[in-house]
Amino acid sequence: MHAELIFTGTELLSGQVLNTHGQFLGQELSALGIEVILHTTVGDDWERMAEVFRQALRRSDIIITTGGLGPTADDLTKETVADVLGLPMVEHEPSLEAIREHFARRGMAMPESIRKQACFPAGARVLPNPKGTAPGALLETDGRVVIILPGPPWELQPMFRDSVAPYLARLAGRGAVSRSRVLKLTGIAESVVQDKIRDLTREENPRIGFLVRPGEVQVRITARAEEEQEAERLVAECTEEVRRRLAGFIFGVDEENLEEVVGQLLADLGVTIAVAESCTGGLISTRLTDVPGSSRYMLGGVVAYDNRLKEQLLGVPREVLERHGAVSEETAVAMAQGVRRLLGADFGLAVTGIAGPTGGTPEKPVGLVYIALSAPDGTCCREFRFPGQRHSVRQGSANAALNLVRLFLMGKNHL
Amino acid sequence: MHAELIFTGTELLSGQVLNTHGQFLGQELSALGIEVILHTTVGDDWERMAEVFRQALRRSDIIITTGGLGPTADDLTKETVADVLGLPMVEHEPSLEAIREHFARRGMAMPESIRKQACFPAGARVLPNPKGTAPGALLETDGRVVIILPGPPWELQPMFRDSVAPYLARLAGRGAVSRSRVLKLTGIAESVVQDKIRDLTREENPRIGFLVRPGEVQVRITARAEEEQEAERLVAECTEEVRRRLAGFIFGVDEENLEEVVGQLLADLGVTIAVAESCTGGLISTRLTDVPGSSRYMLGGVVAYDNRLKEQLLGVPREVLERHGAVSEETAVAMAQGVRRLLGADFGLAVTGIAGPTGGTPEKPVGLVYIALSAPDGTCCREFRFPGQRHSVRQGSANAALNLVRLFLMGKNHL
Repeated sequence: MHAELIFTGTELLSGQVLNTHGQFLGQELSALGIEVILHTTVGDDWERMAEVFRQALRRSDIIITTGGLGPTADDLTKETVADVLGLPMVEHEPSLEAIREHFARRGMAMPESIRKQACFPAGARVLPNPKGTAPGALLETDGRVVIILPGPPWELQPMFRDSVAPYLARLAGRGAVSRSRVLKLTGIAESVVQDKIRDLTREENPRIGFLVRPGEVQVRITARAEEEQEAERLVAECTEEVRRRLAGFIFGVDEENLEEVVGQLLADLGVTIAVAESCTGGLISTRLTDVPGSSRYMLGGVVAYDNRLKEQLLGVPREVLERHGAVSEETAVAMAQGVRRLLGADFGLAVTGIAGPTGGTPEKPVGLVYIALSAPDGTCCREFRFPGQRHSVRQGSANAALNLVRLFLMGKNHL
Repeated sequence: MHAELIFTGTELLSGQVLNTHGQFLGQELSALGIEVILHTTVGDDWERMAEVFRQALRRSDIIITTGGLGPTADDLTKETVADVLGLPMVEHEPSLEAIREHFARRGMAMPESIRKQACFPAGARVLPNPKGTAPGALLETDGRVVIILPGPPWELQPMFRDSVAPYLARLAGRGAVSRSRVLKLTGIAESVVQDKIRDLTREENPRIGFLVRPGEVQVRITARAEEEQEAERLVAECTEEVRRRLAGFIFGVDEENLEEVVGQLLADLGVTIAVAESCTGGLISTRLTDVPGSSRYMLGGVVAYDNRLKEQLLGVPREVLERHGAVSEETAVAMAQGVRRLLGADFGLAVTGIAGPTGGTPEKPVGLVYIALSAPDGTCCREFRFPGQRHSVRQGSANAALNLVRLFLMGKNHL
């Protein structure tokens, strides 16, 4: 079953308002096993809206519109839908009554213009709007479903969840269902991921898609089947195969992020961590403390941006800094040990590197980063070379550092 | 002149990713005096993308696509555009060279699959991508302009501003010109900003728009005129009037962000800063060090997330913590003085507060934050109550802290 979304509102085209409906409805419909094939955003313009709606009727089983249900002259959605479908507009008495009451409770007379909000294409089911005065509508026509929702997200979202989602769940039950899973990877380039599972990406079902963030690659697996169980089985099988080929790089599934995964591992083991940051400048501490409840395992950190602090605060020996430089394995190791000691933590995590744009040399180029983890039973260090500019190097370093902790703790978990 | 935007990416349809391109491009094009008449979001599907692109060619003068420029099999945009326009794909030697160099600098072999990123529809002007490996493209064809941009916002936005906006400004120069300016405010609510300039927002030219971010309000002033100078004059006059009414709250103009403004003030005065963070967990340090060259003035910081560190590392007296609590004016002041002393900086900035979701009490609710600044000649502290959830409280706190430094240093500048 295919769905298509039509967002109306000139304020969306001019960028005055950020459109969040696409994300909300996309996620809700995917969860119902309904594939969204197209979004269109159109202004408050009768001709253009009618054209877009006509095309959607030819293409999709389910058409959802947002916005344009208010009392003003440029609120045209219901009228356009009725016109294209050749239906008259009829007044809905209970809605008119509700609007009248709404004004009466506030001691105000109902403006005549607002009567429009109680009119719907003939045959529509009216969807109550607990958060506003403009109800929505649902129409079944020629095997198509048209769902008309209000523009404000705080009105649209409850209306969708209360009235639309249960209806669509029943509807989707009749056709094919789909299930999907997102695997999140770090420490590997998109092109390498693609190479490793090229054969799987050629399949139609399950289907594989990619998404790249700085220091992160996401693999989305979506399967369809007649039965929910069968779709689940297809996703699980494909997930298993991707996991087999890309094992150590996968840090999370679906909504999980790296700081949550690492936080959960630390909390489960009942251990604490402290962070010493140079080129990342506080980014790792910020991400670890983004997680509610992180004070259970995150003691804090030192941002040793100036090299003197590495010596004075973290106790990196001067001869290490002089002989090997601030960006070196030896310095990273001493920073990790130093912050662990200074803060009295079980683990000390340290990052030192060259984020750019300046500071690179032929021997130590921009992107060179050392990450060390000091544990009760020893310290390990890894060298990285991150591509891209300052932003990417810093994000990549933070991801790699959190991933180092993850891999280390996973090993611990299996002891 | 009409523009139309085509966003590609299955992850946008499924709601995995929030589409922010519509807002960014809508604002930029409006500022250039170009009307956006339609957005379409389409998946990584050749047939559907070709259909959407064909319709756009019939309808609009300017067509901008986003996404689908990567090396994988589902990156189809350039190939689809070439196919619909009947153009062959040709390899662009300078782009291939740049990509080769990118890999060579990192001591890696170039994957064969990535060669695709250096191929473009014949006749296209290649748009450099300073933030990534996939260049964009610009094509003039039959009186239409087709502009092909990458998907990641951090690549798309600089490419648009550097290469596309100047081109479109010249193109739009055939009609009316427009100029715009963004004033960035902090420490004030959107509703208060609106009240203060309500009369100005009723004007058609210059036109005023608002955009709200956590802890930040942006006022965008756009003027149109037949001559560039006249548009400039209208923007300047309106900017002056807004400045007069909202003086102390405006921290930056256009692309400036708060950390750059603060960094420039610190650099100009030749002074250094150190940061002690509790509830912000490293966010202020991260933002200060986001600025290239920040090592001139940013020494580093301490993330004292655990309360023991406030005492042991920053030297907050135990009796202060016991009598007033970790979230108090007294603790914030002692933290600021402590980090200034510990790191040997000219200024010490400290934040302590309750970010939530837990930890609030009736006397000290979620959102209560104390921010202190210790200077060579004394220490000041302010109390804040930030609305919203954890993320908003942390962002609001970081903005308020940086703004406190800004206001203090501006005063110093005038001494």
